Amino acid sequence: MSIMGGAEYLPEQIADNAHFSRLTGRPEAWFERATGIATRRRAAPHENSNTMAISAVERMLAEGESLDGIDLIIGASYTPWDTVGTMAHAVQRHFEIRGAKALYVSTACSSFINALEIAAAFFDSGRARRALIVLAEHNSLYADDSDEQSGHLWGDAATALILDTSQTAQSGALQVVDIDSRGLGDLGAGPGGVYLHPRTDGLVMPLGKDVFQHACREIESAARAMLERHLLTVDDIRLLVPHQANDRIISHVAERLGTADGQIARSIGYLGNTGCASTALTLFRHRDVLRPGDLALLVTFGGGYSMGCALLRCQ
Amino acid sequence: MSIMGGAEYLPEQIADNAHFSRLTGRPEAWFERATGIATRRRAAPHENSNTMAISAVERMLAEGESLDGIDLIIGASYTPWDTVGTMAHAVQRHFEIRGAKALYVSTACSSFINALEIAAAFFDSGRARRALIVLAEHNSLYADDSDEQSGHLWGDAATALILDTSQTAQSGALQVVDIDSRGLGDLGAGPGGVYLHPRTDGLVMPLGKDVFQHACREIESAARAMLERHLLTVDDIRLLVPHQANDRIISHVAERLGTADGQIARSIGYLGNTGCASTALTLFRHRDVLRPGDLALLVTFGGGYSMGCALLRCQ
Repeated sequence: MSIMGGAEYLPEQIADNAHFSRLTGRPEAWFERATGIATRRRAAPHENSNTMAISAVERMLAEGESLDGIDLIIGASYTPWDTVGTMAHAVQRHFEIRGAKALYVSTACSSFINALEIAAAFFDSGRARRALIVLAEHNSLYADDSDEQSGHLWGDAATALILDTSQTAQSGALQVVDIDSRGLGDLGAGPGGVYLHPRTDGLVMPLGKDVFQHACREIESAARAMLERHLLTVDDIRLLVPHQANDRIISHVAERLGTADGQIARSIGYLGNTGCASTALTLFRHRDVLRPGDLALLVTFGGGYSMGCALLRCQ
Repeated sequence: MSIMGGAEYLPEQIADNAHFSRLTGRPEAWFERATGIATRRRAAPHENSNTMAISAVERMLAEGESLDGIDLIIGASYTPWDTVGTMAHAVQRHFEIRGAKALYVSTACSSFINALEIAAAFFDSGRARRALIVLAEHNSLYADDSDEQSGHLWGDAATALILDTSQTAQSGALQVVDIDSRGLGDLGAGPGGVYLHPRTDGLVMPLGKDVFQHACREIESAARAMLERHLLTVDDIRLLVPHQANDRIISHVAERLGTADGQIARSIGYLGNTGCASTALTLFRHRDVLRPGDLALLVTFGGGYSMGCALLRCQ
């Protein structure tokens, strides 16, 4: 299975640290110092996770990808616009992808890896051959900008990508060598660390320290387990793409794993935490550094908790 | 793959037609005449889809099932309590199911079949061996009882079940012979027929007639396709379990397919539309009629739209 191509969609409006300083009374410099985040995008009033997913697919088509033969659509988000007419259904309708299987999945920020794993399982068992994955977060619909604890972390964004069973080495395609995912709901604060109650509290992070500590530990642990399983060391990885939740988590993981400058992909500084879209989006933004044969390692950590990891090889 | 066992959880509070008559001014008899629904259950204030899922698992364990060896947890719902710490994470934490994969899925009322299909794909490709599926709907969190169009349709409920790769014929287990699912978002009103915007409108059905017509057509069509694929006629099916959305849809499908009295399983009259929990719950309530060798056919239709179908053989 290979990632044949993909694209991002970012809404135009930008929320900078002056905005959060005004709302919370904190010094403007505090936000970037604490999280590495300078700016985040904000969906316009007419946008939502379904429309942003469609916009990402449109960008992908404009870059030359095709929806021909799509027989599986997976939409992922923890910030849904519609839990009945899901992102997968909205995309199916907009692009008239008749007869495809369509489903919506969430494991918070690690859903991209779950979507990859579901597609791989459907491919391996002959249930599908070509999948469209859409990942979109509309964090600003559910978060409160004046929430001092976590309001400043979230960005809106969407990513779309095509997965194909094709084993032929199409130049630039990213072969998915291995995938692993795990629910970690039994660890630490679990579902109490960061949660999104759509009808009541929205998106809040009452136990940020527990989330931070488990993210550091589990991202490192998942990366090490994947490297060991393939008899690799971190030096064999051209690009490590960790979930973009907080730059301090990324730096901590980079230091623990002993990565060199230029091995770590980041988008957190100008996009914030874009949830399940973040890892795919960050991968595509750094795709040019990958040469045929290069390995990339994606590692996500999701609220709830959960982890996901994928090893890719550039073709 | 077989369904080894399962159980339901129903909250205690009952909403009868007098309640909806008071709220809407419609005659009490209208509701049962139009939908076949006499009563529905309502979650208590301290309950939600996560707690109801846990309660269903507790009931299942009390009936003798075991969580030993569970390596995959799938939670399904379109009425989530938490889209970050999902039902799968809450169940993993409550029952300390360490190391299992865990994910949340929604295709509205057809999610049970998607959960079955994901488990089958994970089993077939060696990614898991024993799965816990929890299906829960907290419709009353998102619906408005005074909504004349659809407020009276919805019930709260949860179902839990165990799937195993075991091919040995454990008496009473239900072997999953075949599964199919399809997104139908491109048909009719699609995501505009019935939707759930968690942050704004809640659960509403502005185009009930379109939903009704497509449900009738697609349930019949999915059932016929599954029968044809296995060279079966409707007489070969001991139990047809259609999604429980409206008794008139069920009766229409039964007439079109030419089923006999006693072939159709119903729970709609006293539970209403319990969403993705409905088909599994209705199956378990009619399990005693199935003898070894008997076939059961599950057919769902979901808002958005989508369909799912599964053929089972009693062992």
